[in-house]
Amino acid sequence: MTEEPGRITRGFLTPPVRDVHAYLSERMRALGMEVRVDAVGNLRGVWRPQGAGAGRIVMGSHIDTVPDAGAFDGVLGVTMALELVDAAHAMARPAAMEVIAFSEEEGVRFSGPFLGSRAVAGRWDAALLELQDDEGVTLAAAIRAFGLDPARISEAALDADAVAFVEFHIEQGPALEAEGLSVAAVTAIVGQSRLDVKFSGEANHAGTTPMRLRRDAMTSAAEWMLAVEAAARAEEGLVATVGRVHASPGVTNVIPGAAQLSLDLRHAKDATRKAAVDALLGRARAIGERRGVGMEWKELMDAPAVPMDERLTAYICEAMEAEGLPARRMASGAGHDAMVMAGLVPTAMLFLRSPGGVSHNPAETVREEDVEAALRVGQRFVERLAAEIR
Amino acid sequence: MTEEPGRITRGFLTPPVRDVHAYLSERMRALGMEVRVDAVGNLRGVWRPQGAGAGRIVMGSHIDTVPDAGAFDGVLGVTMALELVDAAHAMARPAAMEVIAFSEEEGVRFSGPFLGSRAVAGRWDAALLELQDDEGVTLAAAIRAFGLDPARISEAALDADAVAFVEFHIEQGPALEAEGLSVAAVTAIVGQSRLDVKFSGEANHAGTTPMRLRRDAMTSAAEWMLAVEAAARAEEGLVATVGRVHASPGVTNVIPGAAQLSLDLRHAKDATRKAAVDALLGRARAIGERRGVGMEWKELMDAPAVPMDERLTAYICEAMEAEGLPARRMASGAGHDAMVMAGLVPTAMLFLRSPGGVSHNPAETVREEDVEAALRVGQRFVERLAAEIR
Repeated sequence: MTEEPGRITRGFLTPPVRDVHAYLSERMRALGMEVRVDAVGNLRGVWRPQGAGAGRIVMGSHIDTVPDAGAFDGVLGVTMALELVDAAHAMARPAAMEVIAFSEEEGVRFSGPFLGSRAVAGRWDAALLELQDDEGVTLAAAIRAFGLDPARISEAALDADAVAFVEFHIEQGPALEAEGLSVAAVTAIVGQSRLDVKFSGEANHAGTTPMRLRRDAMTSAAEWMLAVEAAARAEEGLVATVGRVHASPGVTNVIPGAAQLSLDLRHAKDATRKAAVDALLGRARAIGERRGVGMEWKELMDAPAVPMDERLTAYICEAMEAEGLPARRMASGAGHDAMVMAGLVPTAMLFLRSPGGVSHNPAETVREEDVEAALRVGQRFVERLAAEIR
Repeated sequence: MTEEPGRITRGFLTPPVRDVHAYLSERMRALGMEVRVDAVGNLRGVWRPQGAGAGRIVMGSHIDTVPDAGAFDGVLGVTMALELVDAAHAMARPAAMEVIAFSEEEGVRFSGPFLGSRAVAGRWDAALLELQDDEGVTLAAAIRAFGLDPARISEAALDADAVAFVEFHIEQGPALEAEGLSVAAVTAIVGQSRLDVKFSGEANHAGTTPMRLRRDAMTSAAEWMLAVEAAARAEEGLVATVGRVHASPGVTNVIPGAAQLSLDLRHAKDATRKAAVDALLGRARAIGERRGVGMEWKELMDAPAVPMDERLTAYICEAMEAEGLPARRMASGAGHDAMVMAGLVPTAMLFLRSPGGVSHNPAETVREEDVEAALRVGQRFVERLAAEIR
């Protein structure tokens, strides 16, 4: 189910999304669920067992992908949620359950992520409808072309009886594999800072300028890159990356007069993240001063961390231990629908090991034993929540 | 005398070169010199005073420029040589003198430098005539368009009675200014190594990849850039520059999987230069091994140092001391016509202070007092050589 034969590419409300909806709808109906597609294209299945109390457990993840994607990022969480609805049929006192296949999480087609969960979480903004894709199609037009009515997006909002949202997702990183673990409870989606940092020295002849008379912007930048790395290594849970590096004029026989770098820095605690950014900007300034090189910076992003619900996360950890699994907790370094949903309803998230740490890539995979372990944990978690709902 | 009004740009055999030839020819004739333009466009003036012995002192520099150049790079050395011919008229026993205004040194129009001095020094290669400029004009056609005959380039060769070549040139670097000195004797044109160095790690998600599981190519490159800087600082006369830096994929939220760098390393002693290159490649390999990052390199240039003639250089130093100037010796970090001429005839070179170290720039300048000092040194030098020639 893809836009491109031979590769998995499934953008927001593109034709293969109809096939995904058809496939999942059939499965939902077989499970006795009421099915609808809301106005932003989320597929919603609701199961209301007889005698269920006043409370609904919501689960889900997204069904869109990046171009040339793997087979598990997002959609695995939807199919696992349906497995848990299936398993709940065997429970003595099941609760009502809703499974949401979010239409958009990756931010590819309209350069803004979380369109599906924003509509569900009541964080929709009418201006979003004006966004245009690469072909000039507005978000409103894309919704209409799919047979939906953008005027009815408010009806996508989550029903008031929702008591929890839980998302299963591949880790998309190497940590669980490195530790030989199947699953982890997510404690928070990390906060993220993005900055541009520029060192300004003096471009000069590489042959005629003695070392002691240089004001090389790039060696200042090199010293700072190592400071960034050392700072992140020294603080548990901190990740910091200089991904973009540009030396000017960028010629073999000219000393760089300017060096522009990006900094991407993330941590689950905002105070830790901000202190790290401040310390690193101070280091950059000090390096520049010592070397006679100017330093400027610009903050491009300051997104706070989103903690998961502590009670629900504790339930997940207890379920892991009951299944004989270490109750590994970890922060998510990437954004997920759970981040948006957490603003509306108590939310938890479970990561599954990503072999090789690979994601956003056809080589992305998941181990069957880990899916099985995650489903066992999920089943215990659902049972515990259902018991509270009566 | 420029191709572009308001800026000094004078490429090889472009129209303003005729004006330069006309201006300098008039001056040469006024000094009693025989004037010709050889087949590669060098303007040659020869002064043969009555009773001169069998030996000719050759002086000169180039009259082409880089685009948007300064007023002194090259042509100052030609006009100073003419001043020394003028001064020689007052000598009791002057020697024959030739002044050469080399047609091409910068390597701009045909991407190959030293066309003028190569023809004079007998280092011409017929294949050079096939070189094309940006408009597809061959070097042979450019020579013909200027009214010259490429078949007669061999006649540009220096006459066998030449006993010395000396070039006066601005330093194009900041060393003399930093030391408060007017002039320096050039001991050698430094040898130069150019290499490409590539670190190959693993591109990965900046948010989900813990620091300890990264194989960041750019932090390896940063560590190496500081090693390059430290090595050059530790060795007198060594300069080493990383001017070109490219991180891949070069995106804010992706750990660089590859980093490509240039290395430009120069020293007046080839053994020192080669040892430094070997040591730095060893460091790069060790850094890569420690970080789980691959390292490859490719040598692009290995140009040996060209020493100036020791006897002539000693004469220059003695002349400096006789004029009350410190006998500062320094290597030239950049190439000059003297480098080519040294292969044929004993050659010396005198640098004049470059205020601000600026060259290849309209702000390039020279101090009158330094020109005066250099002329006094040159006059003593010419007198000493002339005394040997009788």
